[in-house]
Amino acid sequence: MPEAEIIAVGSELLTSEKTDTNSLALTAELNGLGIEVVRKTIVGDDRERLAATLRDAVARCAIVVVTGGLGPTEDDVTRDAAATALGRTLIFSEEVCEAIRVRFRSFGRKMTEINKRQAYLIEGAEVLANPRGTAPGQWVDIGSALVALLPGPPRELVPMFREDCVPRLRAKFPARAIRTRLLRATGIGEGDLDATISPVYTRYRNPVTTILASSGDIQIHLRAHADTDAEADALLDEVAGQIIPLLGGKLYSRNGDSLEVIIGHALRGRRQTLSVAESCTGGLLGGRITGVPGSSDYFRGGFLTYADETKTELLGVSADLIVDRTAVSEEVARAMADGAKRRARTDYALSVTGYAGPDGGTKENPVGTVFVGLATPFETAVRRLRMPGDRDRIRNFAVQNALNLLRLALGL
Amino acid sequence: MPEAEIIAVGSELLTSEKTDTNSLALTAELNGLGIEVVRKTIVGDDRERLAATLRDAVARCAIVVVTGGLGPTEDDVTRDAAATALGRTLIFSEEVCEAIRVRFRSFGRKMTEINKRQAYLIEGAEVLANPRGTAPGQWVDIGSALVALLPGPPRELVPMFREDCVPRLRAKFPARAIRTRLLRATGIGEGDLDATISPVYTRYRNPVTTILASSGDIQIHLRAHADTDAEADALLDEVAGQIIPLLGGKLYSRNGDSLEVIIGHALRGRRQTLSVAESCTGGLLGGRITGVPGSSDYFRGGFLTYADETKTELLGVSADLIVDRTAVSEEVARAMADGAKRRARTDYALSVTGYAGPDGGTKENPVGTVFVGLATPFETAVRRLRMPGDRDRIRNFAVQNALNLLRLALGL
Repeated sequence: MPEAEIIAVGSELLTSEKTDTNSLALTAELNGLGIEVVRKTIVGDDRERLAATLRDAVARCAIVVVTGGLGPTEDDVTRDAAATALGRTLIFSEEVCEAIRVRFRSFGRKMTEINKRQAYLIEGAEVLANPRGTAPGQWVDIGSALVALLPGPPRELVPMFREDCVPRLRAKFPARAIRTRLLRATGIGEGDLDATISPVYTRYRNPVTTILASSGDIQIHLRAHADTDAEADALLDEVAGQIIPLLGGKLYSRNGDSLEVIIGHALRGRRQTLSVAESCTGGLLGGRITGVPGSSDYFRGGFLTYADETKTELLGVSADLIVDRTAVSEEVARAMADGAKRRARTDYALSVTGYAGPDGGTKENPVGTVFVGLATPFETAVRRLRMPGDRDRIRNFAVQNALNLLRLALGL
Repeated sequence: MPEAEIIAVGSELLTSEKTDTNSLALTAELNGLGIEVVRKTIVGDDRERLAATLRDAVARCAIVVVTGGLGPTEDDVTRDAAATALGRTLIFSEEVCEAIRVRFRSFGRKMTEINKRQAYLIEGAEVLANPRGTAPGQWVDIGSALVALLPGPPRELVPMFREDCVPRLRAKFPARAIRTRLLRATGIGEGDLDATISPVYTRYRNPVTTILASSGDIQIHLRAHADTDAEADALLDEVAGQIIPLLGGKLYSRNGDSLEVIIGHALRGRRQTLSVAESCTGGLLGGRITGVPGSSDYFRGGFLTYADETKTELLGVSADLIVDRTAVSEEVARAMADGAKRRARTDYALSVTGYAGPDGGTKENPVGTVFVGLATPFETAVRRLRMPGDRDRIRNFAVQNALNLLRLALGL
């Protein structure tokens, strides 16, 4: 099985606040090719240290991926250090320089002089185009090892790895078939979910099962390898086929689609529409719904009613009701959902009101209490939630629960 | 300045789901002693690889901290690998074994045979007691370097480092002070910013300057070390004092506060209020504003007007105007901001309308074109932006630009 090392470059990755996480996505991609990651090194923006690290890595490993340090500034040292480590020269590429110039022009700006630094290529390197940033990647085959120099920002790095490195690696290391499947569940704790399905998945070493939880969303990754895709798929079917019935309605996706994608698909198909009324989430729910391309087909809009008066003025929630029941109450959540549905003229409307903290809350409804409402063509329902954690976590959890309420109402 | 390397041991840290985070707390502790972390390596439960990694580390660095791999099982290889790397033997300690036995007894269990593995010490090592687990740490002074072997679980590792390693390090390396400062800028590209300030910061090795950019927000980290806090602060003042005037109005924060925190602080102080009208960002702007605790003091709410009709119905944007100018136009952005200000009854209102892609756009206004509007007590202004990147990036960039427009209008 071929082995890889990953080197992450950046002084900020050696602080107490930040560390390399790019290697996680890279590892997933490499593993997908049947390549094992055997060492990861994090070095600062230091030419000599990076050169020494890279020299050691290529001496012992067939595949070395370097991320970061390809920017245009003084402290971007990867090009220089790699040239030193590989004993090659750096050559200015007019072609790459022109591509950077064109990119700047496309958003109406002029390339600065220092960006020319990004047009230097290691002798013999192939350029990996970067349609999402200015730093091109470089691919160097030194015979005994393959070296990829990739940009640090994840949204540039990951697509570049997928588009330019995966095919090159696949050509060099014909993989066995590896197939993955992603199941997603919500409305259940990670521990409970694991207790429910571990009797199944622990009986199999192939596929490998990994469980990841984030803001109430649980992903169950299955990864099978076999000689052919069909055999790997059969292994996945065997295990997924046992897990799925155990989770019942908690499972919402068998193909990795997110809640908002699944909801959007259903609403579009039924030609129905959605609006939102958000208090403590302040737009995060709408932001997540509209993160799906084409969401304008079913999402008409919404109301951020953060102050009590805006709940009354924009949504028609009775001011007396707010005084009587408080803004964080079942009744107000209901009135918000009804108001949004009526005023945005949609088939469905979600509402969220709660105490996200750190201050606020009452004895009855402390910080972490959130009411989520859903108005449908037939009725309006409200759920009261209690969530642990900080402001960020409470708000994201509330969004997840609101989307799940709608999913269940749509029978998905 | 003394330098340290951290080696994290564990095959699970090389998967796509999990990576080393122990080093963050260790880095904070080390930095607190004036010790810089210059390299971090992550290796699996592999005797030879760990031995090679540790051998390289002690050859080049004065302080090496190894975490993990001290458990009792077959795949806990740190003791063996460290003995090999340091060229020392492992010696069974009856004393350590008895301590482990006592610990098991204290929670009513009998020590298992395999736990005896944890009682082997590297020749010449000091034992670091572990009152929170079975694996004792080890401290080895090899003359040219100090090596600490520490357990992996954070609740054992961090207290052991604080209680047993910090005093030993302090005795060896009388502490120096480390102070940091975070400046933030926006409305300027990373390359332009660097070209502007690098003539200053490249003249200093102390403080160290690091530049990080994300969605149009640029952070300039300065880190100084000196004998006292006051001296370190003076170094920071010296460099920051030269950088700040070069950036003029692009610099918005001298203490690391985010745009939304700074805006919120000003609005609260002036007893003024804010609302938003979002189309393509769908709530992300409101979500960011309300991410600040206490934002209800000035943020009254907003309108997610994703469909054209909601722009008319909720904000009073003329339907003819939308037909005439299209929904993504200066005129509609202006009418949205005016409508939000009027209907939410606020002093300021921000609006965003644009093409976030991947589909949509016109020849004149292709994907990536966003109009950001701001209504103030005095006037309404609109800026047209062109942004590269995918849907996510365009939306986040638009939010950043909207907040920056408000910051500038507030004279911050």
